[in-house]
Amino acid sequence: MVFTDIATRTYNHNWRLDPIVRSLLDTDFYKLLMLQMVRHLHPEVHATFKVINRTASVRLADVIDEAELRAQLDHARSLRFGKKELIWLAGNSFYGRTQMFSPDFIAWLADFRLPDYDLRKIDGQYELLFHGPWTHTMMWEIPALAIINELRSRAAMKGRARFELDVLYARAKAKLWDKVERLAQLPDLVISDFGTRRRHGFLWQRWCVEALKEGLGRRFIGSSNVLLAMDADLEAIGTNAHELPMVMAALAQDDTDLASAPYRVLEEWQGHYGGNLRIALPDAFGTAAFLKDAPDWVADWTGFRPDSAPPIEAGEQIIAWWQARGRDPRSKLLIFSDGMDVDSIEATYRHFHGRVRLSFGWGTNLTNDFRGCAPFDTDGLDPISLVCKVIEANGRPAVKLSDNPAKATGDPTEIERYLRVFGTSGRKATPVSV
Amino acid sequence: MVFTDIATRTYNHNWRLDPIVRSLLDTDFYKLLMLQMVRHLHPEVHATFKVINRTASVRLADVIDEAELRAQLDHARSLRFGKKELIWLAGNSFYGRTQMFSPDFIAWLADFRLPDYDLRKIDGQYELLFHGPWTHTMMWEIPALAIINELRSRAAMKGRARFELDVLYARAKAKLWDKVERLAQLPDLVISDFGTRRRHGFLWQRWCVEALKEGLGRRFIGSSNVLLAMDADLEAIGTNAHELPMVMAALAQDDTDLASAPYRVLEEWQGHYGGNLRIALPDAFGTAAFLKDAPDWVADWTGFRPDSAPPIEAGEQIIAWWQARGRDPRSKLLIFSDGMDVDSIEATYRHFHGRVRLSFGWGTNLTNDFRGCAPFDTDGLDPISLVCKVIEANGRPAVKLSDNPAKATGDPTEIERYLRVFGTSGRKATPVSV
Repeated sequence: MVFTDIATRTYNHNWRLDPIVRSLLDTDFYKLLMLQMVRHLHPEVHATFKVINRTASVRLADVIDEAELRAQLDHARSLRFGKKELIWLAGNSFYGRTQMFSPDFIAWLADFRLPDYDLRKIDGQYELLFHGPWTHTMMWEIPALAIINELRSRAAMKGRARFELDVLYARAKAKLWDKVERLAQLPDLVISDFGTRRRHGFLWQRWCVEALKEGLGRRFIGSSNVLLAMDADLEAIGTNAHELPMVMAALAQDDTDLASAPYRVLEEWQGHYGGNLRIALPDAFGTAAFLKDAPDWVADWTGFRPDSAPPIEAGEQIIAWWQARGRDPRSKLLIFSDGMDVDSIEATYRHFHGRVRLSFGWGTNLTNDFRGCAPFDTDGLDPISLVCKVIEANGRPAVKLSDNPAKATGDPTEIERYLRVFGTSGRKATPVSV
Repeated sequence: MVFTDIATRTYNHNWRLDPIVRSLLDTDFYKLLMLQMVRHLHPEVHATFKVINRTASVRLADVIDEAELRAQLDHARSLRFGKKELIWLAGNSFYGRTQMFSPDFIAWLADFRLPDYDLRKIDGQYELLFHGPWTHTMMWEIPALAIINELRSRAAMKGRARFELDVLYARAKAKLWDKVERLAQLPDLVISDFGTRRRHGFLWQRWCVEALKEGLGRRFIGSSNVLLAMDADLEAIGTNAHELPMVMAALAQDDTDLASAPYRVLEEWQGHYGGNLRIALPDAFGTAAFLKDAPDWVADWTGFRPDSAPPIEAGEQIIAWWQARGRDPRSKLLIFSDGMDVDSIEATYRHFHGRVRLSFGWGTNLTNDFRGCAPFDTDGLDPISLVCKVIEANGRPAVKLSDNPAKATGDPTEIERYLRVFGTSGRKATPVSV
């Protein structure tokens, strides 16, 4: 006899919305660290964030229903930090430090809600903008990306038979576990989940995190996703992002001010955070320029997170820089997080093992690798390169150069000016797949 | 919020037994066809069946708890054919024929129960025997094998974490679906599930059957499992087995009588069943001997099921025999069912395609192929070669020679006598893996 739980079944068939973002903690940890600092030092700055689909061949507006997208964005706007969540943020230790977030900041979070959004369709794509105080618009990045990516996955699976979905997920699980077994061969691996923004779906990210926990044990150090970190008693992982130097650069008064903007960001950061949180992101306007002009104290930071140059080249460049400044790379940390997958993790690990401390942030290829898994014909489950970037601050255009011109964003005239200020040394175009 | 169905949870944590065989229809269809005939023609014959583990390296008594085995066997003995089941057997058409089972037989089934069993441990193995009327002991073959195989799977998975089991089944599903996708490349494939006796478990067999239905469509013609056929509205598939010639040979009065026993079986069979059920199993005492001495009318039967010789050799031998007797092989049917898997199905299909009608019975490698799937260290999920054979009839020893001496069963002195009567032509030892 099959017993059916009628109430559950009725509920399942009648819900208004299957929410994608169910908590404001369902975001990346670095957002909270940056937010605390931005609120402290730059509460008056206005910043606009924009979703950019770098995979132009995928016409998102043809795939995702606008009403569904609005319903999900509206649902995210209805969220508040829960009491339990704020207590956890206040009481938990992060990176070995208690009271990472000040009582004043926690109290402010209690009233936080995501600001309004500005959505329209243009030529088969969605133009999605967030205008308002930087302290609020910055918090849209992760939920907006997670919503669009999951709506796209759902669209690709819509109408598929239960059995097809069963095979799809069986294959995806088998595929991920094969990756985990390969990574388990690397004894000193240090790896974390960075896959929130690009995930296939929330439940799937949760499964992936569980897989890493089961298969890698202590080598898996945690998740950038604050909600999953809380729920699974994992470390929340993350430091800072490009938006800090981008806004600082946008606000610069002149070219001299612009040239020193990346270092001002670090000064502000070290006024708030220490230890393993002192990880510099060197590539916002080109790693070569950043290293060339960096004050000596930057070499005292714990490490770097190269995020757009090929990992081995980027690591060698930074190690040479540390050595030239008399620092021992073996006490330093390199975090690799740009489109990593098992092959590149293995190669990078083997290349640097023993020469420098290494850590990997595994994103899209962890939480959204369904390539070859569908038992039906679709490319709607292949990941796309979707980002949400700050495009202006206080009315001034924001720019990112990156080590890879394919990842540059901003107004072309401004990009020209930045290239004059920072130079073009070391920039190399590489196709961006995820 | 997670809602827990408390009643279901409490029930799940307290059941006395998770039964392996839940219905007397959870058996192979040919058993019912044979039973109807045996009851009609040989109701007085007593026959003993015995479980034989040909994979001696697996010490079943060390793996399977005796109390659990007895509980499962006792549960199977408690079963009766349900009213709905008997109505279906009476009302359904099989192989295109209505009323395959006589009202008299159906009425007799209503009182049927499995007879007692005789179980002891000997040197790390179970000795499991079924004594009694052939009409009853023959019905133990499939449930006894399914019970032992599933108890062995359960033992290998006992105490494993939920996540490990999740990966295990994900990989097994992915593995099977890859096989299905390969088979789907064969446009004229005709295949059925023959995997009941060797299955990993009942629920897994059901998934496999669903996979074939989904992936192969009309090329999947049905299941030998009567219960699954009823539940999923599939054709029940099967004809007859070695026990018929084995018992008939055991009962033979002298060597002359023995030599003609295989053909007497066919005479009896064609008195009961026609059309696609007239499939001869030629290898009980060697295919070469069977074909050499067969009366001409045997060539009028629909086809053969070679079950121990290598498929291509066996098929060629039978095709040549049909041609020598002036029959057109293109109107004839060959059914291959001996340890088939995708490689051998593809090779056999390609070899014979267009020359003869082909059908495949896919058993162990369909319903119990977990090789390489466990994310933990075990060989307890690799299939073993377990059979349940008739060993005596009316006190006289029963023998099977087979085309493969590794599959021969019976008393060595009797085997010698049978080899003198039937000859050794064409016998070739091949390792038996499943």
